[in-house]
Amino acid sequence: MSTQQKMTIGNYLLRRLKSLGIDIIFGLPGDYNLPFLDQVEDFDGIEWGNNCNELNASYAADGYARIRGIAALVTTFGVGELSAINGIAGSYAEMVPVVHIVGTPPTASQASGAILHHTLGNGNFRVFANMYKEVTIAQANLTKLNAVEEIDRVLTQCLLKGRPVYIGLAVDLSDYEINIDPANIKPLNLTIPRNPKDEHQAALENILELVHKAKKLVIIVDACAIRHEMMKQVIRFVERTQLPVYVTPMAKGGIDENHPQFRGVFSGNCSTDQVQKEVYDADLILSIGSMNSDFNTGGFTYRLSQKKTIEFHTYHTKVFYAIYDKVDMRQLLPDLTEHWPANLAHQHFDKPFTIDPPVLNPKHQNEIIHEYFWHKLPDFIPENSIVVAETGTSEFGIFNMRAPKGVTFLTQILWGSIGYSVGAALGAALAGKKDNRRVYVLVGDGSFQLVCQEISSMLRFKTNIIVILLNNDGYTIEKLIHGPDRAYNNIQMWRYYKSFEYFGDGLKQNRDQATTGFAGQVKTRDEFEKTMAQVAKETDKTHFVEVIMPPMDAPQSLVLTIEGTREYKKREREMQE
Amino acid sequence: MSTQQKMTIGNYLLRRLKSLGIDIIFGLPGDYNLPFLDQVEDFDGIEWGNNCNELNASYAADGYARIRGIAALVTTFGVGELSAINGIAGSYAEMVPVVHIVGTPPTASQASGAILHHTLGNGNFRVFANMYKEVTIAQANLTKLNAVEEIDRVLTQCLLKGRPVYIGLAVDLSDYEINIDPANIKPLNLTIPRNPKDEHQAALENILELVHKAKKLVIIVDACAIRHEMMKQVIRFVERTQLPVYVTPMAKGGIDENHPQFRGVFSGNCSTDQVQKEVYDADLILSIGSMNSDFNTGGFTYRLSQKKTIEFHTYHTKVFYAIYDKVDMRQLLPDLTEHWPANLAHQHFDKPFTIDPPVLNPKHQNEIIHEYFWHKLPDFIPENSIVVAETGTSEFGIFNMRAPKGVTFLTQILWGSIGYSVGAALGAALAGKKDNRRVYVLVGDGSFQLVCQEISSMLRFKTNIIVILLNNDGYTIEKLIHGPDRAYNNIQMWRYYKSFEYFGDGLKQNRDQATTGFAGQVKTRDEFEKTMAQVAKETDKTHFVEVIMPPMDAPQSLVLTIEGTREYKKREREMQE
Repeated sequence: MSTQQKMTIGNYLLRRLKSLGIDIIFGLPGDYNLPFLDQVEDFDGIEWGNNCNELNASYAADGYARIRGIAALVTTFGVGELSAINGIAGSYAEMVPVVHIVGTPPTASQASGAILHHTLGNGNFRVFANMYKEVTIAQANLTKLNAVEEIDRVLTQCLLKGRPVYIGLAVDLSDYEINIDPANIKPLNLTIPRNPKDEHQAALENILELVHKAKKLVIIVDACAIRHEMMKQVIRFVERTQLPVYVTPMAKGGIDENHPQFRGVFSGNCSTDQVQKEVYDADLILSIGSMNSDFNTGGFTYRLSQKKTIEFHTYHTKVFYAIYDKVDMRQLLPDLTEHWPANLAHQHFDKPFTIDPPVLNPKHQNEIIHEYFWHKLPDFIPENSIVVAETGTSEFGIFNMRAPKGVTFLTQILWGSIGYSVGAALGAALAGKKDNRRVYVLVGDGSFQLVCQEISSMLRFKTNIIVILLNNDGYTIEKLIHGPDRAYNNIQMWRYYKSFEYFGDGLKQNRDQATTGFAGQVKTRDEFEKTMAQVAKETDKTHFVEVIMPPMDAPQSLVLTIEGTREYKKREREMQE
Repeated sequence: MSTQQKMTIGNYLLRRLKSLGIDIIFGLPGDYNLPFLDQVEDFDGIEWGNNCNELNASYAADGYARIRGIAALVTTFGVGELSAINGIAGSYAEMVPVVHIVGTPPTASQASGAILHHTLGNGNFRVFANMYKEVTIAQANLTKLNAVEEIDRVLTQCLLKGRPVYIGLAVDLSDYEINIDPANIKPLNLTIPRNPKDEHQAALENILELVHKAKKLVIIVDACAIRHEMMKQVIRFVERTQLPVYVTPMAKGGIDENHPQFRGVFSGNCSTDQVQKEVYDADLILSIGSMNSDFNTGGFTYRLSQKKTIEFHTYHTKVFYAIYDKVDMRQLLPDLTEHWPANLAHQHFDKPFTIDPPVLNPKHQNEIIHEYFWHKLPDFIPENSIVVAETGTSEFGIFNMRAPKGVTFLTQILWGSIGYSVGAALGAALAGKKDNRRVYVLVGDGSFQLVCQEISSMLRFKTNIIVILLNNDGYTIEKLIHGPDRAYNNIQMWRYYKSFEYFGDGLKQNRDQATTGFAGQVKTRDEFEKTMAQVAKETDKTHFVEVIMPPMDAPQSLVLTIEGTREYKKREREMQE
């Protein structure tokens, strides 16, 4: 057999990842993954993303995948993979496809149950992989015999189901040569299973009948639509129907807010009065990819009647109370688009969608309060940027913020792991680099403290990220929920604006790192606007803008969501009693 | 019923923790644990340990428990507990008793399967608790009815088995009042189950017979002895027998190195020639609490014959090849001490145990190389200090370092999670405060990057820790194992010595923080010695000493362990083929 028809397991995996568009792999070195990292470093077209810790690496992979459709992460066995598990659980919850490759101990040691470092000392090498079954959609433990089939199987699942997968690669196997001709590798089969024919047809007819009867139809686009790469089909549907369209917080940015049919963000009580009026007034709601979690629904303050809602999901379709199992929106929606009745009468709103400027209380004078901030911010964000918003005040701040054309929003509304935004911003920046998409990350001081070291990677990878740190001296979201005067909601004050300096800006050892621009505090609206105008112009530099805000100030949408959640809990308790 | 006979679940739990000696609880706030944190904050004699992230908090709890015998950690559901799981797994592997309390969503929401933030969005509230079953020895999900029994059960298990436990406490239950009289709470029953009588007796007789026959007996003390609070009994045994005693790396510091019977650290090929000669020359080895992991045995280079080894364990005793099940050393060892034959002839070593000063290669001149460093360091460490050594060069550096009287060593030889030392040092410092024990933490630059933010907590809690950062520009242990010239083993250089400044030293918002002393780099032996003498004197301050070392220099014990592991893997592969 000629060497042409052989390939190492590691290189086969890298070939597959590259073919899916991956050009960087995040993670940390550890002795059980080093031979694979040799292959990564030697592989043409894939960079190694050496993060500062595994949790941040998993956040970076998540951020990258949200922009590029898939990402990869490498950690070592035990210690490394467990440090990343919160991030992977977040990708699972929020339906982000990430391939987690874990370098495991030598095959022979696993077989003999040796007491190696990074194990629990009990000879059990399956413990951590078992934990990962809870937060990944498919898992593989590669062997000499199954590597090709298993790699293909889990990567296919990752893309089709849009969720993370787990690959265990023993340290001695990445270099193992398998019989496969590198010149003759077929693409993965990513065909979605066909919907059951009769159910599909029944659902379609049921929907069309209701559409004919209805007078006021609206479309609400939610998380699962933008996660499953459905957005092109959704936009075709929106434009074919000409119906007014709303997004939920988790789908913010999924529909261009300058689109003539766009009507705002719907999030129950957190929506503007106008949005609430329009949505509640509808007699038929077409809900695409909904995810009705607490923070996505204004704290369960949706008052949408099931009796007038059609839900399009990935694994079923629900028409009022009727469930059509396995009728996948990825086939139903294009079919519905095609069969949409011509000349259907539909409501028309005279007034185009706008966000009114807030009436600012003059007592705040030049202070940077949230109502001012979120209204002003979009003025400085160029088209096609990526905005990463941290859980907490920022996540809620972006709800009703204007989105410039082509802006993608990244936030963890369901999983809500504080600190996520910093790693995710790094991943998003590296994902957006090839299209010159710039990243703005909005992070609170409390959240930043969990993950500060990834600023180091931002410098190292020559990003031009703009870090906007909202310094309101403590965990403000927690204070609003409970214990505003409690010591546990206060934190040590840092010199945040010295982040670049601390993490090595300008040191001669750090060859080829990012050029830094602004790195300082802004305390007034004037300073903020001047700084933001400057950083927008300096596109080849990375910037750190620490915004000083009054401690207990918060976006209105956050205050309303917390009120909504409180009411919900009260009702729930009452129902139980 | 009078209010005197009622107590909240949260306060009951805190009462129990306090009675076990816990005076600080580590962790982070999250909305599902805030009502419990109110109780912590209001509880007399327990402080709240507000860490910078959950992983660091779990390391801090581990460090505290190694000094005080038990520790507690509070996180929130999902995101928080998963961020801490690597730390708890480490405590499990290394047998450290930590009580992990997780604030979970409201009972009613869990019952209804609500899609809340920090869940996977699938209504399953047991996922994370299930993962924790793999890395804790007992778990409880508290309810109104079972709270008292379950708290007592898991705390008892935590102490008896010396491993972490998991307590789920729903956010609405910490304030729930249970019928219990606070004035009449009985202490936990911590009696060890009796050894089976016949097996115990048979083992004892078997051992005594062998002891009579043997001429050259030695004792080796290992991890499980110092973890199970056995050390007093072990020392009584050592002094009764008058035998030479050795410790393994995991038990370093367990026997006072100035004790007349102490003969050194035994770690296979990594031991000094003298130690190897003495141990291998023995005809009967009494091994107490052994844990034969790779890095504890010089990379599996122990050449101890099972035919002359008696192993004392917690759950069994092994005499040569015979296993006596359930014969626990906690009962057997005191019994053996009592029955030890009087006037037993035993070998005597003329030369007392010493560590010879290294012969330093003059080409290094004034450079701080490892051979110099670990020999010089003990000169500056006062008696009864706590030395925390990071996985990597430091962990191996302490193997053959002299230990001043009463010094406790903390390191993760088995689990080996890099970054552990920084959080553990914080925990150890707060644990040692009441006895004026000072903490010296030795951490490499690579490891420090994972966890740097906990320096903030060191300032906030007014510790007088001495951080010694060994800056050798990259992951040196990884480079020695694999890929010395690979980019993945290099890291961004930071201004480490500015840590105090960055993390808020001197800011007026940080009331009552630590006073800082030295914070800078030392590049020569003269600078190092001058600085260490100064920081030893300034006992009311915290210090940060960045030691600049040549990049590829490493302790001899590390080089030997890696060689040993390589040989072991080679043999293992050969046996498989």
